[in-house]
Amino acid sequence: MTANKLTIVVDAMGGDDAPGSIVAGARLAVERDGQQVILVGDPDRMGDTGDLEVIPASQVIEMGAEPASAVRRLKDSSIIRAAEAVRDGRGAALLSAGNTGAAMAASLLRMGRIRGVARPAIAVPYPVPGSTPTIVLDCGANAECSADWLVQFAVLGIVYSRARYGVSRPRVGVLTIGEEEGKGNKLVKEVCALFDAYNWDAVDAQHVGNIEGRDLLHGTADVVVTDGFTGNVVLKSLEGAFAVFEQSVNEAFAASSALKEQSSTIASTVQPVYDRFDPTLAGAAVLLGVRGTSLISHGSSSPATIAHAIGTAESIASLDLIGKIRDTFRET
Amino acid sequence: MTANKLTIVVDAMGGDDAPGSIVAGARLAVERDGQQVILVGDPDRMGDTGDLEVIPASQVIEMGAEPASAVRRLKDSSIIRAAEAVRDGRGAALLSAGNTGAAMAASLLRMGRIRGVARPAIAVPYPVPGSTPTIVLDCGANAECSADWLVQFAVLGIVYSRARYGVSRPRVGVLTIGEEEGKGNKLVKEVCALFDAYNWDAVDAQHVGNIEGRDLLHGTADVVVTDGFTGNVVLKSLEGAFAVFEQSVNEAFAASSALKEQSSTIASTVQPVYDRFDPTLAGAAVLLGVRGTSLISHGSSSPATIAHAIGTAESIASLDLIGKIRDTFRET
Repeated sequence: MTANKLTIVVDAMGGDDAPGSIVAGARLAVERDGQQVILVGDPDRMGDTGDLEVIPASQVIEMGAEPASAVRRLKDSSIIRAAEAVRDGRGAALLSAGNTGAAMAASLLRMGRIRGVARPAIAVPYPVPGSTPTIVLDCGANAECSADWLVQFAVLGIVYSRARYGVSRPRVGVLTIGEEEGKGNKLVKEVCALFDAYNWDAVDAQHVGNIEGRDLLHGTADVVVTDGFTGNVVLKSLEGAFAVFEQSVNEAFAASSALKEQSSTIASTVQPVYDRFDPTLAGAAVLLGVRGTSLISHGSSSPATIAHAIGTAESIASLDLIGKIRDTFRET
Repeated sequence: MTANKLTIVVDAMGGDDAPGSIVAGARLAVERDGQQVILVGDPDRMGDTGDLEVIPASQVIEMGAEPASAVRRLKDSSIIRAAEAVRDGRGAALLSAGNTGAAMAASLLRMGRIRGVARPAIAVPYPVPGSTPTIVLDCGANAECSADWLVQFAVLGIVYSRARYGVSRPRVGVLTIGEEEGKGNKLVKEVCALFDAYNWDAVDAQHVGNIEGRDLLHGTADVVVTDGFTGNVVLKSLEGAFAVFEQSVNEAFAASSALKEQSSTIASTVQPVYDRFDPTLAGAAVLLGVRGTSLISHGSSSPATIAHAIGTAESIASLDLIGKIRDTFRET
């Protein structure tokens, strides 16, 4: 079984608790789940890496560093070396919990763009109870977008929705502030005009019009496009909201003396709900549009989260998204 | 006690279940809570209005109508007549659960702008467990904003935070996609430059820098400014997320046979948490910058929600926000 797994290249130095929690998560994925992992980082700082293969890299791009200049300056950084390893075919996907901008820039610079894709976008699957996730993009790669990029993001999302979740004719919408045609800011209005004119049949998808924020977790669409500023603010707002909500629910139960004896049953009942909305478990963020599979995990990722994300990276790498995106952009 | 209450003018025809649920909510507020209410609407359609005063209006602006043209065309509509009643001093505040754009346009046209305020903004208090709410604005009045408007929104929010929640030196921030200076889209970068140069001491406030989505419910700032597009998308995303989360928690408990006997205790334990994050109870949306108190309630408002919002409108009207905003903008 192990022999069938694709190899995942992990940036061991990226993350709030790197390299400790990253190495621990990678070892968990290998030793428990039978994954194949290559770690990239400073051997002197990584501690016990077990039997895992290590690609040495002497530099680190810190979480707060300015990405564009850092990736140009720090050519022996773990994220650059990791992106090169995927480019060179040593692994099938890159996983980083480090500086998101640096992971994007390293992927773009070292793996390259897929021909015809103007800009890569970060795609995040939003959980929809009882249904397949809604893929939202761009969740942060491009703070400023032009309307035609959002049409391309839609196509990237369509390919992803079909390949990963088996959605046969993905429903596509634009995130905006009202259901009625014509509601939105300047960018959204331009995108709506392009969407109305676009031949969705050619990409085997359907246009379902405007999507409001409250629809995101309701499965109203399979793919929702937005600019990377709005997408990132919404993603982080929901992450923060779920965390506060969970904490408030837990505190309410902890304060109830009547439910004291049931506390462990209550905890095990709500935990699956928390997990369902946990952004670190929901499926990881994928950078679509580059010529390699590149996943971005939360900076605060625990070893368990990293192990889970390695499994996600392996299953996404096996989808051949790059080939499918390349074919779609060649044809349209 | 009744004699001390300020009169609230309620648009009886606005809302998904109007006029039925609006009239029922208004009667509840009067008969149970001792509020003073004037209903505005079509007497032939409002049913039994009890002892409440009614201002007749023969027209209705429907929920999906294009606001700007509707308010110009439908001069005998309930929302226009209600805004006129507040302008003419017959009531201290306007409450509408109808077409948000029409409520804004009617308030702006009939009450007028406060001198010095370029654009009114919708302010929404976000609940912060264990602390005073964070006021977010603009939550939807202006889909496109210029940077100097956001500085004004900050000042409006500062006055509101101090008057309503007693915050002595409100902390102000800009909603964006990273904590570091310089992260954001073009608008945010311009706003940050203006914020850095602004004399916050003159309005007795402090600038706390960039705010990320995940900080919104954590009390990192007292006032957070954003453009009305982003603000509205985030607001509705959080509303949708809380609804889905609540439903998922409820379903998990309903499916647990081990907790069957505790189901009513569990329900009464989590209900206060749900209420805390319920957008219809959280404090209503206020249109700041117009020369009158104008509140916008959810289209789906139940009678209980309307009664609650009337109480909120009464307490906000008693703050003399208009006078305080006028003084602040005169001085700065």
